Amino acid sequence: MKIYTIGGYNEVGMNMTAVESNNEIVIFDMGYNMSRLVEYSHELEDLTTLEIVERGVIPDDSILKNNAHKVKAIVFGHAHLDHCGAIHKLIDSYQSKIVGTPYTLDIIKRIMKDNKKPIKNELVELNPKESLSLSNNLDLEFIHVTHSIPGTVLCHLNTPEGGFLYANDFKLDNEPTFGEKPDYSRIKKLAHSDLKAMVIDTTRIYDEKRCESESVTKLNLKHHIDMVFEEKGLVLITTFSSHIERLRNIIELNRKRREIVMLGRSLCEYVHPAVRRKYININGITLAWKRRSVESILEKVDKNRENYLIICTGNQGEPNSVLTRLAQGNYENLKLKKNDNVIFSCTTIPTPQNIENRAMLENKLKKLGVRYYKDVHSHGHIMREDHRDMIRMVKAENLIPAHGETERLASFASLAIEEGYEISKNVHISQNSKILNL
Amino acid sequence: MKIYTIGGYNEVGMNMTAVESNNEIVIFDMGYNMSRLVEYSHELEDLTTLEIVERGVIPDDSILKNNAHKVKAIVFGHAHLDHCGAIHKLIDSYQSKIVGTPYTLDIIKRIMKDNKKPIKNELVELNPKESLSLSNNLDLEFIHVTHSIPGTVLCHLNTPEGGFLYANDFKLDNEPTFGEKPDYSRIKKLAHSDLKAMVIDTTRIYDEKRCESESVTKLNLKHHIDMVFEEKGLVLITTFSSHIERLRNIIELNRKRREIVMLGRSLCEYVHPAVRRKYININGITLAWKRRSVESILEKVDKNRENYLIICTGNQGEPNSVLTRLAQGNYENLKLKKNDNVIFSCTTIPTPQNIENRAMLENKLKKLGVRYYKDVHSHGHIMREDHRDMIRMVKAENLIPAHGETERLASFASLAIEEGYEISKNVHISQNSKILNL
Amino acid sequence: MKIYTIGGYNEVGMNMTAVESNNEIVIFDMGYNMSRLVEYSHELEDLTTLEIVERGVIPDDSILKNNAHKVKAIVFGHAHLDHCGAIHKLIDSYQSKIVGTPYTLDIIKRIMKDNKKPIKNELVELNPKESLSLSNNLDLEFIHVTHSIPGTVLCHLNTPEGGFLYANDFKLDNEPTFGEKPDYSRIKKLAHSDLKAMVIDTTRIYDEKRCESESVTKLNLKHHIDMVFEEKGLVLITTFSSHIERLRNIIELNRKRREIVMLGRSLCEYVHPAVRRKYININGITLAWKRRSVESILEKVDKNRENYLIICTGNQGEPNSVLTRLAQGNYENLKLKKNDNVIFSCTTIPTPQNIENRAMLENKLKKLGVRYYKDVHSHGHIMREDHRDMIRMVKAENLIPAHGETERLASFASLAIEEGYEISKNVHISQNSKILNL
Amino acid sequence: MKIYTIGGYNEVGMNMTAVESNNEIVIFDMGYNMSRLVEYSHELEDLTTLEIVERGVIPDDSILKNNAHKVKAIVFGHAHLDHCGAIHKLIDSYQSKIVGTPYTLDIIKRIMKDNKKPIKNELVELNPKESLSLSNNLDLEFIHVTHSIPGTVLCHLNTPEGGFLYANDFKLDNEPTFGEKPDYSRIKKLAHSDLKAMVIDTTRIYDEKRCESESVTKLNLKHHIDMVFEEKGLVLITTFSSHIERLRNIIELNRKRREIVMLGRSLCEYVHPAVRRKYININGITLAWKRRSVESILEKVDKNRENYLIICTGNQGEPNSVLTRLAQGNYENLKLKKNDNVIFSCTTIPTPQNIENRAMLENKLKKLGVRYYKDVHSHGHIMREDHRDMIRMVKAENLIPAHGETERLASFASLAIEEGYEISKNVHISQNSKILNL
Repeated sequence: MKIYTIGGYNEVGMNMTAVESNNEIVIFDMGYNMSRLVEYSHELEDLTTLEIVERGVIPDDSILKNNAHKVKAIVFGHAHLDHCGAIHKLIDSYQSKIVGTPYTLDIIKRIMKDNKKPIKNELVELNPKESLSLSNNLDLEFIHVTHSIPGTVLCHLNTPEGGFLYANDFKLDNEPTFGEKPDYSRIKKLAHSDLKAMVIDTTRIYDEKRCESESVTKLNLKHHIDMVFEEKGLVLITTFSSHIERLRNIIELNRKRREIVMLGRSLCEYVHPAVRRKYININGITLAWKRRSVESILEKVDKNRENYLIICTGNQGEPNSVLTRLAQGNYENLKLKKNDNVIFSCTTIPTPQNIENRAMLENKLKKLGVRYYKDVHSHGHIMREDHRDMIRMVKAENLIPAHGETERLASFASLAIEEGYEISKNVHISQNSKILNL
Repeated sequence: MKIYTIGGYNEVGMNMTAVESNNEIVIFDMGYNMSRLVEYSHELEDLTTLEIVERGVIPDDSILKNNAHKVKAIVFGHAHLDHCGAIHKLIDSYQSKIVGTPYTLDIIKRIMKDNKKPIKNELVELNPKESLSLSNNLDLEFIHVTHSIPGTVLCHLNTPEGGFLYANDFKLDNEPTFGEKPDYSRIKKLAHSDLKAMVIDTTRIYDEKRCESESVTKLNLKHHIDMVFEEKGLVLITTFSSHIERLRNIIELNRKRREIVMLGRSLCEYVHPAVRRKYININGITLAWKRRSVESILEKVDKNRENYLIICTGNQGEPNSVLTRLAQGNYENLKLKKNDNVIFSCTTIPTPQNIENRAMLENKLKKLGVRYYKDVHSHGHIMREDHRDMIRMVKAENLIPAHGETERLASFASLAIEEGYEISKNVHISQNSKILNL
Repeated sequence: MKIYTIGGYNEVGMNMTAVESNNEIVIFDMGYNMSRLVEYSHELEDLTTLEIVERGVIPDDSILKNNAHKVKAIVFGHAHLDHCGAIHKLIDSYQSKIVGTPYTLDIIKRIMKDNKKPIKNELVELNPKESLSLSNNLDLEFIHVTHSIPGTVLCHLNTPEGGFLYANDFKLDNEPTFGEKPDYSRIKKLAHSDLKAMVIDTTRIYDEKRCESESVTKLNLKHHIDMVFEEKGLVLITTFSSHIERLRNIIELNRKRREIVMLGRSLCEYVHPAVRRKYININGITLAWKRRSVESILEKVDKNRENYLIICTGNQGEPNSVLTRLAQGNYENLKLKKNDNVIFSCTTIPTPQNIENRAMLENKLKKLGVRYYKDVHSHGHIMREDHRDMIRMVKAENLIPAHGETERLASFASLAIEEGYEISKNVHISQNSKILNL
Repeated sequence: MKIYTIGGYNEVGMNMTAVESNNEIVIFDMGYNMSRLVEYSHELEDLTTLEIVERGVIPDDSILKNNAHKVKAIVFGHAHLDHCGAIHKLIDSYQSKIVGTPYTLDIIKRIMKDNKKPIKNELVELNPKESLSLSNNLDLEFIHVTHSIPGTVLCHLNTPEGGFLYANDFKLDNEPTFGEKPDYSRIKKLAHSDLKAMVIDTTRIYDEKRCESESVTKLNLKHHIDMVFEEKGLVLITTFSSHIERLRNIIELNRKRREIVMLGRSLCEYVHPAVRRKYININGITLAWKRRSVESILEKVDKNRENYLIICTGNQGEPNSVLTRLAQGNYENLKLKKNDNVIFSCTTIPTPQNIENRAMLENKLKKLGVRYYKDVHSHGHIMREDHRDMIRMVKAENLIPAHGETERLASFASLAIEEGYEISKNVHISQNSKILNL
């Protein structure tokens, strides 16, 4: 079995991995690097794909180029952009089908459309507990896990040389507030199959604990909402637009208290498909993003501020988000002021741009006398003790840490050593554009 | 009104404050400094009280000495040792009554007994929502709040010059797992009384958020207990012995799963009175601390390891605790080994001694192959945004931060400035052995 | 004696303090806040002075407004912009003379000119060891100290109520590489005068040591220059443009090795007056900032890269600096590439904007294969043990920490407590727009 | 070529590596792990060598056991105990000669003597610029470098399969205050030899700069000594006892000012051989360690405190050191007090024991009113940019980071990737008890 570690092995972001067995290849993920995307955004339109690759914005898949005809499928485990956001730049080289859960494919279709790329490849929906034959030799199975976006799965590929598990971005939440907990029973059975290798997300390998459940955040949100609703001001909550479970909880905790409006483009992009898939119910909630609509909604809100809860974009302080514009006084019809409250139901993703943007946003809120709350959030990624749980549950022959720079991969390797693995023998610290022969 | 800031104004720990109005004084707390107590423990027996004071182990109450006859009461808001642990060393100077909630007085009686000091002062039990007249001029009222030990209250003293609120160590837990949430309705009414001053705990002023509820820890504990009970080894949990709410949760989460034994001296000291007050039910649970009993219980446990949950002392890695002894292999009848699990349901209180002790303990556990989990815990103290809530709720004329070194007190003052207070005018950064004239 | 703590008592930056004795006032400093200046730079031109004050960019001197006629002098201890950069916005209210060392006045004249403000006030040059009578009652004396800009002094004001020392920003460098070490003999004599109060800079109060000498940086620079000159590429060094001593050292360490060019507007602004004052000799060095000159110099440099040392602006990654433009490939005639070396002889001043700018700049350098070195620098401010030295040397009756937010001022107060002072009695934690009556 | 990575590849400390070529083996270093040595010190006497190995105190050389007869030499690059301190426990398995510089062998002889082990192996002195033939196939050469102990060298082994460079612990100090700077001319020639592999120290790989010269510390020491000599108290300096260059500087900076006494056992152990090798001159200086001598010297010192400089043990707060005993008041004849000054010319090596010991020591000094200065020190290890310099200078075919846990080794690998190396291909992250086949 050959593992092509294409992207995400020298950085957080830009995930892309491929597996080859018997001359057949399956690709997992085609993500971008958010921080570099922002850094080069001013010139991105003018750059060729090759130049974008050179700047480290999207993966360099050139090690696959001569084997593009061998590719049987491109598989996406979930729809975050660091996993699927480069599809429109990279898909042209491949004719194979694209496989994902229904919600993941919804987002992929939207990305292609936004970038004015027609979809030529076949799109195949696959659900957890289902399998798909990719060729005489290859079977793909999706396994349900929890994460901060709906439709997240572990991807299990069966090959004649043994199994391959792509476990890049997920969480082991035993008390999810929406949907089922991870399919532990299936996960544990992998230990008794012939599992040749597991690729596993290491973004939070440094947190020496288990990741907290979304139920914890729901409790914390309740505390904050209860307290701020007592003040007579406007309440705003911002979170990741794709975090449908969180949005559900915010709506539920508010039930029958305040009128909700959801404002911002990316909220629309992720909430609308979630509504169609019945992941979230927004009856009675206004959802808008175009400037004129937002302005007119804000005018209505302003007349009755203490009766409204605004859910809006801007959790990272993005310059064009609704929250940032509000803080800058860009909307004529509603100005933030003392007794207003902002709940950041998110973490600041630590890129230099986000750090500056958030600091500037918080300064502006403070100057206006607006009270704000940070980090009312639990993470979406397994942490060090969850990693240990996974290692023990699946008992893969080889471990391949991914989604991190060399130091993160090595930190996972340290843990694997504690669990009996050996570096270069059965736990592999790889790097971008490299091929592991197992 | 005169405020004597006696102890806890140059450090965390060693709390003691007194208030004088019309020639009558009320003392709040007589605590020790845990870190210095450990540092000087080898020679403590040989030192005079004066020498112990000089080493900063207990407060220096000499500024009260000439006024001891004016003292009408010594009041304890809760029974943590940094608030009441110096009583046997300091009480001799004062003839006045001692006031506390029933559980607080239980612990005080035990401290006096352990130190072979007869109690000469009158002990007066006071419950939340009750008042006590201390003199013609002074009335004392207890207000229910949440904290990590039962029977914690805010102490509200009414004087002819206005009210005084002693709010030193508490938490605003809106979802407590035992007892009621804080008596917000009473707290908010203080804003409409003539509240001259509030002394408030700043230990966690640097945490820029609200303190998480104990319900959060219960959820996290559940996750951990569910996961470790699946392994076939022994499970040990250690927490602060006085944290009765936590112990209740551990017992409840285990219900009908494993047999529980509780081991360690300080567990007995705090659990027995809690049982008598019906704060906790330990039917069917073995509780022991003497070496021989512990040995014989461990022998029984060892024969059926996967059927037992041990709750034991040692959360800070204390050298003589049950957990440390187990990790060192000091008990003949039970040795820790691979597949055993230890849950630290606590934080490491960051004194140099604790840091070393815990590091050594964790090393030993790791060497034995025992898996352990840290910080399955939520704090017991208000944090920065809770401080802001308190400032806004009680609207005291003067604020006096306590329970911290100058930097912590100043950090609270910064917050107070944001809320409209002014340094030296109505928010006061004091220091030990100083008198504020309001 | 009344001390008006106008600016720099709630933040780092924006320094302004005034002293009143017998109805006569002396103002010290009129600085701006750099971070907020950048934050509001897009709209600054359109704002009124009042609006700029409200945004916290410059000090709010309104507590002086009714007493403007009492002002006898405005004194500047040195020419950094957080001490004198708001002069053109605030000076109109005051008719009094402006006093500074010659170099400080050079910079002030340049600021006024750049802002198209004619100077109406009398400018009075004062040198260290000299005194100036400001009125029958007030005498001003300058005392030589070291700092990261030439012409820095402590300002000692003699009043009938005792002395006042303004010691806001300086360093105790016993091995300066340019000029004399601090005038310790004069400083120590203050202890025997009747020194009522000292205002003292606390920017680096958290560093628990003495500040390192500029000689240390000279040694480190030598190491770096020796190593990078062996490679065959271009070498660039960037530092604070006003740090003339550093620039001298760079030039001296290069002597007879490479041809030097100095590029960037702010370098011209600070170096030209320093040349006139004979603080630095740039014979044989090209100094330029206009785009066309820079372009033509770079063209020459490019033909002989390994023969040049470029000293340029951009030490904080400022978007319009020469270094940032070079890293972005904005100059046609010279492109940075592998084997080029950049030495950052500075620290990153930790504002969110600088942090992002520097991160982006470093990313670009890395992408180009340019090697760079950070923090080849020693600080310009006294540190905690220097503070203790100062406290012991001058033995002021009252201490007033400045140039920091409440936490920094309190950290100084802690130190003062160790040295026998008492909070609110003789060490004063003030805040902006407050008056201390001593 | 086979590289046995025996110790120091999963931790800092406990260094041991072996190289095999054509059935001949050379061992480099036999060090211990200081932190674990302290942790198990109470029982060390009772443990077998195997048990000591199991506790991770000394390397596990069992992968060499069947090949012990192939060992042609055991080579020590310098005499720090994490490189040679386990020799008495491990040497019995090997009959080969022991090679080191003269000072290194002095220390090894002392270790063997202290442990009552007769030396059976031949001891061979080798100096920088000299070569030694170990067999027909193997030649060993020592190359001069700088470090914090005299006699430190890089070890270059020539084999028929190419060269091997053992570069474990050193510093590139271009301005050493004693001896020559590193032999760059020889080091750079390695690039043109057939250098198969380099093992390189990564203890300070996280410091993103070049390590400062000892000249920097000499400047800082001068500043401190000048300042404290002005006070009328006793002055004490403590540093690593093996840091002869530092001790020389302290002595030189004091010349003709105060009388020096050096107190403490380990000082005697390292200074006496250094005197014999003429590395340091202690004429006129009293050096002692036995309790009675120390007591009588202190008695003399006490009579004339301001005329003495004490250099003593205790830089890490070790419980039995002279400084700790002084701080505890253990010596009858001299008590520390206000106006005394302690200079810690060292860093705190961050083990939990050191952190606690130093914190306790500093608390005691503070309580006594003694002023102390921390970290008047520059490190002895190459830092990240020095690593880059080394990679570029020697151009080894394979790089093997050592002296760190997996994360440190990986951080070096990241750097190597930047310089064009590839993980597992020519930069190797190994672990203890593993063999690399190059």
